Amino acid sequence: MALKKIGTQTVKFDRPPVITATSSTVGPKEGEGPLSQHFDVVLKDDLYGEKSWELAESKMLRETVRSAVEKANKNISDMEYMLSGDLLNQLMSASFAARDLGIPFFGLYGACSTMTESLSLGSMLIDGGYADNLIAVTSSHFSAAERQFRFPLEHGNQRKLTAQWTVTGAGAAVVSSSGDGPEINYVTTGKVIDLGIKDANNMGAAMAPAAADTIVKHFEDTGLPTNYYDLIVTGDLGQIGKEITEELVLDKGYDILKNYNDCGLLIFDNLAQDTHAGGSGCGCSASVFCGYIYKEMMNNNLNKVLLISTGALLSVTSTQQGQSIPGIAHAVSIVNKGS
Amino acid sequence: MALKKIGTQTVKFDRPPVITATSSTVGPKEGEGPLSQHFDVVLKDDLYGEKSWELAESKMLRETVRSAVEKANKNISDMEYMLSGDLLNQLMSASFAARDLGIPFFGLYGACSTMTESLSLGSMLIDGGYADNLIAVTSSHFSAAERQFRFPLEHGNQRKLTAQWTVTGAGAAVVSSSGDGPEINYVTTGKVIDLGIKDANNMGAAMAPAAADTIVKHFEDTGLPTNYYDLIVTGDLGQIGKEITEELVLDKGYDILKNYNDCGLLIFDNLAQDTHAGGSGCGCSASVFCGYIYKEMMNNNLNKVLLISTGALLSVTSTQQGQSIPGIAHAVSIVNKGS
Repeated sequence: MALKKIGTQTVKFDRPPVITATSSTVGPKEGEGPLSQHFDVVLKDDLYGEKSWELAESKMLRETVRSAVEKANKNISDMEYMLSGDLLNQLMSASFAARDLGIPFFGLYGACSTMTESLSLGSMLIDGGYADNLIAVTSSHFSAAERQFRFPLEHGNQRKLTAQWTVTGAGAAVVSSSGDGPEINYVTTGKVIDLGIKDANNMGAAMAPAAADTIVKHFEDTGLPTNYYDLIVTGDLGQIGKEITEELVLDKGYDILKNYNDCGLLIFDNLAQDTHAGGSGCGCSASVFCGYIYKEMMNNNLNKVLLISTGALLSVTSTQQGQSIPGIAHAVSIVNKGS
Repeated sequence: MALKKIGTQTVKFDRPPVITATSSTVGPKEGEGPLSQHFDVVLKDDLYGEKSWELAESKMLRETVRSAVEKANKNISDMEYMLSGDLLNQLMSASFAARDLGIPFFGLYGACSTMTESLSLGSMLIDGGYADNLIAVTSSHFSAAERQFRFPLEHGNQRKLTAQWTVTGAGAAVVSSSGDGPEINYVTTGKVIDLGIKDANNMGAAMAPAAADTIVKHFEDTGLPTNYYDLIVTGDLGQIGKEITEELVLDKGYDILKNYNDCGLLIFDNLAQDTHAGGSGCGCSASVFCGYIYKEMMNNNLNKVLLISTGALLSVTSTQQGQSIPGIAHAVSIVNKGS
């Protein structure tokens, strides 16, 4: 078996990579939500001085990288790799930001699982000795996502109660071979799982089986008890997906009812903000982790966190062709040193 | 500096990963081209028994994985990771194939650079001790790409002479920690470079600066002479991009005129097959490497190859918004043991 592999889908790090800094940017609506005070930048206008929402998203991703690198007391030129992706076709946000930043670039697509995909691959690149510093970053933008995946906003269509609200936000993490900050000690890489959900307005249900599979696999592979973690947090399952995940994980004998939450439920007040089932998008787990959870870890309010970003791998084409929605989830275990 | 890094963008492997098997599938037109006899499967019909070109592309990717794994005398369950992407929005080919195959999945997007992106990350995962076997695979499909990026085929529009022809094809490589086959000894990761080309019908010119930058960086970082390689081969620059690349690399003091070619020129007879500037698409370098170059290496007709897949990171949205075309290229050095 591979040197650092434990079980079938998990890697354990010998020299755990350190998250030395994070930064987050969110849109106005996210800035009115419960986590408002935790984000580094709250935009007043979701166009962010650009001519299109797509360019605004790309700027948000780029500037969040600059902020995280500055907070790590590094220069952009110290970043040896940028691992990044977003929801836009052909990764327009990440690609255009990578052009402006000039960091060697690996484009990733895992839909809303991209934050932990980038942290997983980034951790292996650091632990493996291929880099000392790199940036893991993702973004999403409500208005850009709506017109790409659903309807033009001008259409004003009514949203289903099972629908989620794509977060306008970006989160960037500097991952380093040394320094101060929480460490990544395990990553569990997910498989694509599809139980046949075809409703693009119920993505929580579509992604829940993948989330549950990766969570169960993580505990099987590591042998850790579920109460090892102060917080087990999925990316953007929302209310419906969270409940399904709890049940599916319990069915396999793992009880996470007490320490499990979802970034899509943390970021909005669903009733007050009319966000229905909760937040979604790459930027959801990215901004909640980089803006809120990371800071709670730095303050020792949280010491051990399992972050599982969750992605729905649908496209407009696959939906038009009557296909169901494949889901994926990658788990990253992040712990304070000595905790 | 990171343990295994040499220069600024290159990794040198201590325990070089081995490409233990490859397989390739191409469409009917590619099967009529100069490399016909080298491909493992030539489809008679580019729908491949499916109801859409997109589903056909996904099947092509999936079956090419199965074939490569079989040729490596392994089982699908032996593959610890699948590193894969394609040109379709949200990676429909790769995501749906990963669902059917059930291999832990990292979705990648580097446009037509995805084959060397997958080999680069795959090599680091193997050399780093995170896996003993994994699959790197990409695909593209002419008809699916045309209707997504350009016009419906039914439109019958005339193509510019600078335009390239998206290859219908897939290539899969099994990368392992041990076994027989050529080894990956270096990878050089590219930056996104954009000199302002806006013509989506001249992608060779858009990608050439990124290709040249990565090639020059590879020789700067490694200190190798350009004649170390029997073949330096870019992914899909076509005739125009190849000429620009030769000049740009020569300007920097590196002469690759004698041992440089392009997969997009190898796969088609441009005059006889009316493919204008040459082949393109993720499947171009994937099928030419996995179908032709790998076999030439196994027969010792080639011993040292530098493969540089090249990607144009445009989208329909970025083009509609008047943006120029960012390019990227990743280089992978592949050598026969003892050569």
